Amino acid sequence: MDADAYFETCRARVEAALLAALPPEGRRPARLTEAIRYSVTTGGKRVRPMLCLAAAEAAGGIWSDAVPPAVAIELLHTYTLVHDDLPCMDNDLLRRGIPTVHAKFGEAMAVLCGDALQACAFGALTCGSAVNPARVTRWVCELAHAAGPGGVVGGQVEDVADAATPDPATVAFVHQHKTADLFRAALRMGAIGGNATEVQIEQLGRFGNHLGLAFQIVDDLLDAGSPDAADELSCLKIWSPAEARQEVEHHTAEAIKALTDLPGPTEPLRHMATRLATRVI
Amino acid sequence: MDADAYFETCRARVEAALLAALPPEGRRPARLTEAIRYSVTTGGKRVRPMLCLAAAEAAGGIWSDAVPPAVAIELLHTYTLVHDDLPCMDNDLLRRGIPTVHAKFGEAMAVLCGDALQACAFGALTCGSAVNPARVTRWVCELAHAAGPGGVVGGQVEDVADAATPDPATVAFVHQHKTADLFRAALRMGAIGGNATEVQIEQLGRFGNHLGLAFQIVDDLLDAGSPDAADELSCLKIWSPAEARQEVEHHTAEAIKALTDLPGPTEPLRHMATRLATRVI
Repeated sequence: MDADAYFETCRARVEAALLAALPPEGRRPARLTEAIRYSVTTGGKRVRPMLCLAAAEAAGGIWSDAVPPAVAIELLHTYTLVHDDLPCMDNDLLRRGIPTVHAKFGEAMAVLCGDALQACAFGALTCGSAVNPARVTRWVCELAHAAGPGGVVGGQVEDVADAATPDPATVAFVHQHKTADLFRAALRMGAIGGNATEVQIEQLGRFGNHLGLAFQIVDDLLDAGSPDAADELSCLKIWSPAEARQEVEHHTAEAIKALTDLPGPTEPLRHMATRLATRVI
Repeated sequence: MDADAYFETCRARVEAALLAALPPEGRRPARLTEAIRYSVTTGGKRVRPMLCLAAAEAAGGIWSDAVPPAVAIELLHTYTLVHDDLPCMDNDLLRRGIPTVHAKFGEAMAVLCGDALQACAFGALTCGSAVNPARVTRWVCELAHAAGPGGVVGGQVEDVADAATPDPATVAFVHQHKTADLFRAALRMGAIGGNATEVQIEQLGRFGNHLGLAFQIVDDLLDAGSPDAADELSCLKIWSPAEARQEVEHHTAEAIKALTDLPGPTEPLRHMATRLATRVI
């Protein structure tokens, strides 16, 4: 199997489903619709939703059963970026080389755009879909946990609070909750969509968790040269770059180890783990 | 039946369930937990969740079946207040006579507190509850619609954008989406919890919608004397106070008209409609 071609196909499916989940162009309030569509369509890598679809297949299911959580995870992730960029948080004016939502639409609109995206994320799990309600209920529970005060939001609070001189426990907390919780949820929700057993859901969740930790360490390594590096929480405040690289290898190996005895194809997930560990952007 | 005693009982049930849905005191990040608990426990009237429980009973069900949506609606409503108070929105330093979340905890924490509350709202519909998944799926769909860009967030966008000189269509849009959508959802979700028929869900939703419109007009009348009144969107920019009073009476009458042929007790809802129309705070 050509894993790159596989992920290109996944990506096209995600893009189409994402567009369908957004308010149609021009819908009142037009400026909000514009901000939402701008935030979602300006160049995400779609890593989490692609992993979600691949998890359904690794569990022996079909990718289309995992489209609702794939869309939900990406909308949720997008809202966190929009809010993270706010003046009262990281105060970033550019993301992926283009103006952030608050830079282009104003601060109030950026808060509201993020708020709307979170509601759309949960809505994408349920509305109009013909999927089975027991599955929807589990998806909502998984997403709410990963997104809530014990998940992404908790991680962001510690990230903002303790950026300059973090202790190792704080770095671990932020990496786990700000990043790994959502990766874990993406894999677990995909597995649930693919009708996985509890053991398989746990395995794929473990894969996602290690992948998320590796992903965030690589992020910290890639950000090390940025002008704001001194003010930002990073594992490089507690580890040398060589130690950080070792951690990436450890988590990537652990992730791949979790992929044993699954009924469907796992090559795409292995490939993604390696690619994320060695990425340069 | 003593309706006041009934609502006091409802209120006590809501308070207990709300507390149980919040992160336990001291949980890391402690400051976030504190902000969340502060925002939820500082004096809301709990109008929406009480209506939600009463809707389940009016539909012939039992109130306890509507506790998850009652909690979810109040958490959702609380998040919208926390974000509405932000400096980039209404910039309010006091709510119900005590400091707003951003005044007490800072702006970043207020954004994140609201974000966490929205996730908790959806989580309250699903996690650990023994209710049936078909019902949970409908609840999530209802809440996502009411909370999203076509609901509360859309209403808030137009409220912020067009405050000084609104046209009648904008006032109607803001009243409908910022306020009535959530009242409508509270009643529909309660009815769904009470195992109502589609016709009953629609009736109770219509009751909630008219009640929400009346509620917001009364709000505008009560706010008319405030120092910020000139800068805020209000129906009093298109109606005289007498016209506004007439609209309140119209919507209250329409709300009560919707309560025909329901299998359970409707006195509490009628009582609430009258009380909200004539309230002075």
